[in-house]
Amino acid sequence: MPDAYTQLLNKIIEMGRLAAVDALVQWDQDTYMPDQGVSARAEMCAQVAITSHQLQTADALGELLASNSETGDPIRDTNIREAKRDYERACKLPAELVEQLSWASSLAKSAWAQARQENDFQAFAPHLEELLGLVRQKADALGYDSEPYDALVDEYEPGAKTAEIASLFGSLREELVPLVRELTQSPNQIDDEIVRRHYPEAAQEALCRHLAAAICFDFSAGRLDRSVHPFCTSMGPRDVRVTTRFDEQFFSPAIFGVLHEVGHGLYEQGLDPAHQFTPMGAATSLGIHESQSRLWENMVGRSLPFWKCHFASAQEYFPEALGSISLNDFHRAINKSAPSLIRVEADEVTYNLHIILRFEIERELVSGRLAVKDVPEAWNQKSQEILGLAPSNDSDGCLQDIHWSLAGFGYFPTYALGNLYAAQFYKQASQDLGNLDEQIARGEAQPLREWLRVNIHQHGKRFRAGELCERVTGKRLTTAPLMQYLSGKYKPLYGLA
Amino acid sequence: MPDAYTQLLNKIIEMGRLAAVDALVQWDQDTYMPDQGVSARAEMCAQVAITSHQLQTADALGELLASNSETGDPIRDTNIREAKRDYERACKLPAELVEQLSWASSLAKSAWAQARQENDFQAFAPHLEELLGLVRQKADALGYDSEPYDALVDEYEPGAKTAEIASLFGSLREELVPLVRELTQSPNQIDDEIVRRHYPEAAQEALCRHLAAAICFDFSAGRLDRSVHPFCTSMGPRDVRVTTRFDEQFFSPAIFGVLHEVGHGLYEQGLDPAHQFTPMGAATSLGIHESQSRLWENMVGRSLPFWKCHFASAQEYFPEALGSISLNDFHRAINKSAPSLIRVEADEVTYNLHIILRFEIERELVSGRLAVKDVPEAWNQKSQEILGLAPSNDSDGCLQDIHWSLAGFGYFPTYALGNLYAAQFYKQASQDLGNLDEQIARGEAQPLREWLRVNIHQHGKRFRAGELCERVTGKRLTTAPLMQYLSGKYKPLYGLA
Repeated sequence: MPDAYTQLLNKIIEMGRLAAVDALVQWDQDTYMPDQGVSARAEMCAQVAITSHQLQTADALGELLASNSETGDPIRDTNIREAKRDYERACKLPAELVEQLSWASSLAKSAWAQARQENDFQAFAPHLEELLGLVRQKADALGYDSEPYDALVDEYEPGAKTAEIASLFGSLREELVPLVRELTQSPNQIDDEIVRRHYPEAAQEALCRHLAAAICFDFSAGRLDRSVHPFCTSMGPRDVRVTTRFDEQFFSPAIFGVLHEVGHGLYEQGLDPAHQFTPMGAATSLGIHESQSRLWENMVGRSLPFWKCHFASAQEYFPEALGSISLNDFHRAINKSAPSLIRVEADEVTYNLHIILRFEIERELVSGRLAVKDVPEAWNQKSQEILGLAPSNDSDGCLQDIHWSLAGFGYFPTYALGNLYAAQFYKQASQDLGNLDEQIARGEAQPLREWLRVNIHQHGKRFRAGELCERVTGKRLTTAPLMQYLSGKYKPLYGLA
Repeated sequence: MPDAYTQLLNKIIEMGRLAAVDALVQWDQDTYMPDQGVSARAEMCAQVAITSHQLQTADALGELLASNSETGDPIRDTNIREAKRDYERACKLPAELVEQLSWASSLAKSAWAQARQENDFQAFAPHLEELLGLVRQKADALGYDSEPYDALVDEYEPGAKTAEIASLFGSLREELVPLVRELTQSPNQIDDEIVRRHYPEAAQEALCRHLAAAICFDFSAGRLDRSVHPFCTSMGPRDVRVTTRFDEQFFSPAIFGVLHEVGHGLYEQGLDPAHQFTPMGAATSLGIHESQSRLWENMVGRSLPFWKCHFASAQEYFPEALGSISLNDFHRAINKSAPSLIRVEADEVTYNLHIILRFEIERELVSGRLAVKDVPEAWNQKSQEILGLAPSNDSDGCLQDIHWSLAGFGYFPTYALGNLYAAQFYKQASQDLGNLDEQIARGEAQPLREWLRVNIHQHGKRFRAGELCERVTGKRLTTAPLMQYLSGKYKPLYGLA
């Protein structure tokens, strides 16, 4: 008879394996499934979900958790702590509520897509109302200290508190808005016509693969495929899959999209295979995950040193578009910054303002201080305040994102937290590694990748995001590194050095 | 509270959905999984298998089966009958034996691959001995009337009896051997140099897709991908996937391989989506499945009318290899027949002799009348008798197939049964449809596909193979249609008309 911990670990691994099966079934749905496969696929996913839920809430699991307590061994304690957390969350949520949320968001997703297309917020409003009622019930069932939003954000960013996020985002907003104004008013504006030329798809894909390998993505333990919406998923550190899409009239989406998803992929490939399918072998939060993608996409991928190394290759892949372009002009073009309405098209300076806008609105929505019917007005007003421009219609405003229709309240903050963590980690890595810019310029991504693996990836869920940040950088998360990075990079680009 | 049948049906569907998940996970393993993914994948498959086994042997399922009896409704009765059969089989097999078989065959598979490579039957013999012991236990656990082999073949060909197969195969052997001798001794031998020219891979793939669509494979409900060993799998009739491989120096493997797998795929796409994930929506036996693949591969795909329609396309895809070749010379080249040692390379005349050889040997092995150590001698002797030639080593003889190492005793006969059913069905379809040759020559595959759908596919498991054959053709399965087909086709090809 194995001991109580081993028995618990076996149960944990069973759930982890099933989660990997689910990830693969979803990946296939978004990549290779034939069109007509969709209804059978929904049934297959539902079956895996039912089976997972049975494992997650099994009495035997509860009993094993009750007979496991802290041991002092960090691996065991992490697995026990996280398994308890998951079990308690699963047990706290009534099956009926989970099902209601699943149905409501399934309907809301279609309604949202149509409302967005027809610029008709009122058609989406009843769905948003219903979802808010359900996520408030969810928050009540899960419990919280200060406000319901805490319980929601905790799902994506364990341990994060709304008040702390609000404080960080408040500072960030105060510092970013003036920087954006400075850049906007500079006489040295950037024309990005260079990246809007014709970039043949096959060459884009070849360059994507070249760059992914250059930043150490292991293709013997991963894949790159196509999907409508780019994503990264994983069946353990030895089977990590990223996707992208191609626009032949725009260089950036595929190239920087792949660097972004590969950043996620490097986190997954950097997890310890010995802990596969357990919390010690899983990413600690969405914010930390996003820090890895943004670090490789922006701090590395949009840097001058990176293209010092790779611009010649890009010119070879795209002789017509880039053959007669200088490295500096190319580097400026890929870093054009300007306030815009659509989050997913935003540059790295203004991106966080989009997130702050959403965070402020959804926090008010969940608390009930903002009524659903007043969302468009609140959105437009805040957009004017924060971004300096307001959408002329809701499709380009409060209807632009899918997240609310999926009941994903509390998810948006992880994007900006990721940017903050990325800057703080990158600053530390630069200090620890010494000549990071030179390494990147020589095409040596391996030291940075190893630094991230040792300091972040290999710990799995051992440390919560905030604790990890303090361990790695010696400081709590602040806005300073990101602001230093953005000012240090963008002021010179806009002739404001 | 739903009635007893509805409750049972829900359980059946749950198992069916999980089987589809398993099929997809296996498909991915053979097509797109990165190399390093293999160990995690084994764990994922094991988890799905454990979950499936729990559903298959659950007490609640047994109770529901006990409270469901025949209703007179053919759909309900089919589902109840097949669910009972599956449940009883699952319960009869001790979990320990299932696990032993799984482990033993996992080890035997590796040992077989090495033994084959090193031409060392003695290294494989202990594994074969162990597997035979286990499959005999399996046969005993399942029960049988006449001999243990009955219980084994019943897994793949429900209701088939060893004695009946032996009688059919005996006749077939008696009739085939003289035909093969006649063809071999004809002065008009076929040179297949034409199909051994250079056929670029991309053009092969394009022609494969062209022909698959031409015989009505629905790519909106299916896919064609690449794998080392070609196969067809299905996640229901609206998501059917076939695979192939390419040899640039040989026209036949990919082209006829795809027609073969698409034949399987048309059966799967022809099942009734209303009965998805239930026995009424599943193929009735491996023999009937093989009849569909062989019918499209051989009776249609290697016929003169088919290439009357498609040879011009083939010439366009391969102007260098086929540009100056006549249709008749091409048709002769793709139909070269000659006894050979390797089953998977055999032509449609001699193929069945390979199966008869295996059936006779494995029947004796399972019964214990043939000792493992005597297999090579028995194989070589029978090969000489039946095929007129004996292998010079075991790698080209008794070690050539993977099936025994997978404990798949009883599987081989379904290949030859498939050929017999194919001929009998095709003869009937020709009578019913009138001018089938002309339709095929005009590129009209749809009437034949519809005939197969209505007469065979849409019935799912309602009728056992033998019963289905009698319903569709008015006769029990005999060797006559296949022999008429082969004589009628090959004698003229070899100038013996």
